Amino acid sequence: MLEPNGARFWDTLIASAAIGQIAETGLSRLTLSEDDRGMRDLFANWARDSGFALTVDRLGSMWVRREGAEADLPPIVIGSHLDTQVKGGRFDGILGVLAGLEVLRSLDEAGIRTRHAIEVVNWTNEEGARFQPPMLCSLAFAGKATEEWVHARTDHDGIAFGRALDAIGYLGDRPARKTIAAYFELHIEQGPKLHAAGLPVGIVTGGYPTRGMRITVAGETAHVGPTPMAKRANALVGAAMVAVAVDAVGHAYAGADGKATAARLDLSPNLPGIISDQATLYIDFRHPMPSGLAAMEAEIRAALPACAHRSNTAIEIAEAWGFEAMAFDAGLVALLRRTAASLGLATMDIKSQAGHDAYHVAHVAPACMIFTPCDDGISHNVREATRLDDQLPGLRLLLNAVVTRAEPI
Amino acid sequence: MLEPNGARFWDTLIASAAIGQIAETGLSRLTLSEDDRGMRDLFANWARDSGFALTVDRLGSMWVRREGAEADLPPIVIGSHLDTQVKGGRFDGILGVLAGLEVLRSLDEAGIRTRHAIEVVNWTNEEGARFQPPMLCSLAFAGKATEEWVHARTDHDGIAFGRALDAIGYLGDRPARKTIAAYFELHIEQGPKLHAAGLPVGIVTGGYPTRGMRITVAGETAHVGPTPMAKRANALVGAAMVAVAVDAVGHAYAGADGKATAARLDLSPNLPGIISDQATLYIDFRHPMPSGLAAMEAEIRAALPACAHRSNTAIEIAEAWGFEAMAFDAGLVALLRRTAASLGLATMDIKSQAGHDAYHVAHVAPACMIFTPCDDGISHNVREATRLDDQLPGLRLLLNAVVTRAEPI
Repeated sequence: MLEPNGARFWDTLIASAAIGQIAETGLSRLTLSEDDRGMRDLFANWARDSGFALTVDRLGSMWVRREGAEADLPPIVIGSHLDTQVKGGRFDGILGVLAGLEVLRSLDEAGIRTRHAIEVVNWTNEEGARFQPPMLCSLAFAGKATEEWVHARTDHDGIAFGRALDAIGYLGDRPARKTIAAYFELHIEQGPKLHAAGLPVGIVTGGYPTRGMRITVAGETAHVGPTPMAKRANALVGAAMVAVAVDAVGHAYAGADGKATAARLDLSPNLPGIISDQATLYIDFRHPMPSGLAAMEAEIRAALPACAHRSNTAIEIAEAWGFEAMAFDAGLVALLRRTAASLGLATMDIKSQAGHDAYHVAHVAPACMIFTPCDDGISHNVREATRLDDQLPGLRLLLNAVVTRAEPI
Repeated sequence: MLEPNGARFWDTLIASAAIGQIAETGLSRLTLSEDDRGMRDLFANWARDSGFALTVDRLGSMWVRREGAEADLPPIVIGSHLDTQVKGGRFDGILGVLAGLEVLRSLDEAGIRTRHAIEVVNWTNEEGARFQPPMLCSLAFAGKATEEWVHARTDHDGIAFGRALDAIGYLGDRPARKTIAAYFELHIEQGPKLHAAGLPVGIVTGGYPTRGMRITVAGETAHVGPTPMAKRANALVGAAMVAVAVDAVGHAYAGADGKATAARLDLSPNLPGIISDQATLYIDFRHPMPSGLAAMEAEIRAALPACAHRSNTAIEIAEAWGFEAMAFDAGLVALLRRTAASLGLATMDIKSQAGHDAYHVAHVAPACMIFTPCDDGISHNVREATRLDDQLPGLRLLLNAVVTRAEPI
């Protein structure tokens, strides 16, 4: 079995942790920001210094390629993302991209040739912290969005994705869509199961079905002073009632691993002295079983009329979206299991509760994911923490599974 | 008794209604905006065309003066404000300033001379929709804030009050403080009592005691997906629980005319995909009796630990402010009652639930207020509505009470 260079791998993570650093252990490296450019430049230099070709597609996703013996075979791809949340950690996404780089370097060092080329992709805008939706560029890779549509997405300040991409110098000329033979993504679990079980690796069999909703609350502006309580229609109060109800549904289903989140609330006018007449609440909920998700959705929908009545507002689901339950490629999952067994790694099967670029890729190519532990499952938080010893087993599994799939000669 | 020119008065309101108009019947004329400048210019032209002197103080408040026979007597002042909320109506504040102008014009037309000069003041930034706190410049007039402090207030975009004032050309050279003999303010009630009772005039005896609080909620960022419900500390949910609790306290005291408002909520990061770790909720509550207000405050304070416990967040009252119960000048209130009786006006005594510049003025000079009806008590809303017939009695009362206090000769 092949062995990666853990120290070299960890050095790249430490270097990344300095670009966009917040607090002692956090990162705020929004996609297409100056810090994102800095990280991309560093990653590009590492790739070139190691002799790998770099191409950038029209959505800014970076593809680092180690050639295979047969140039006309589609590549095996390892991917994740180098962008972070506005208050994020040092490992979410980054681990997977830098693990991919280490795989390429290890193969060079071991003098292994493969029939397929192996590529590492850094997907632009996985987090969705700046441009909506998240996983925007793997969406286009999967043919579910056009490049033009992606370029036209705007951030909170009205800056278009295409303009921001051009501004940091990463507007490439390759199409976002391409044919690949297989996709591997290594990621911290972002949940506590592996850490609690003391297991080094999770074989991700699929993803939780998930729903998101944009809920609008319409009230009426009025003076906060003389307006009698009975005449008020405070959109903030209506939205607050919904947020509390959604949270309660999450707790009601927590025993079956259901979750429900009131994630974002926008209010207008949102000023002292005047009652707000408009609120937009973004919620999401997920459950391991489609039937459980449907039950949660029914409870949330049922709560809305009561919230509207109690707050004297009009409450509507303006938009709903989500992922259905999805399963990763059976052949690749079996390959991961076999490889882990050969390495003597104890694993558990696990379903992803977060969205990942692998979900979109899975629509157009065989895809799989490896989860590794993070302390207490904390993520999207500056306290996200892990260490090399806890990540090495996952990296070993990635390296050996990828090289098998790429067919060494 | 003197009679104002209702048609002329109403024409000034109609002209004002076109400057910063939103929807069909609303105004969005934030203080020190271009629209505020336009309204100020119009008001200044009206004053000058009528032969009254205009001075502007260092906080931009505009003082229009009709000379009295004895120049060394302090003036009788009629005041209110020409700025509005971001989604406001056409009468809140504006009515009082333009009623003052009509008083001056009516006295000229009737050839009445008074011992005291009579001045009309348009206070800058009454609403507090752009710069905090509201009633900022009457606060300085009352000696409770310095001009320098007012100039340094910044709006949401970081623009300082002093810079904004200079930019619209209304940075005057007179001190904000001056000696006055008496202060009258006419204002729509902004509540439903007069309209419901079918009465044309309310004699305002004082103001409700009021409390405001800035409540902070500290949670922790986390991924909205895999993070177990039991490990979450969602600041949005904590703040929502407080907002619902505050609203419930308002409803519990509504029978005694208590009110409680969750007025504004700021969240961070407030993005999809990540749980917010910071929330700031602005609430206010008021009650006609100090004992009732204290009981409301006790209930609100008692609710906070339960909200913190249920949401797994830390909740604190970061700041609290308010007005104590206040009473207007007994002599002026008696003058309003006598004058109303002479005019054959049916009145009711009423307490103000909104804050007004008259509150601050009352600390340094005898002050009083007249309330007039507005349809259904709707205010801080584009549907704020009334008509000349409903306002003429209040205008008559203002004119005749002011001229009496100014001592006709």
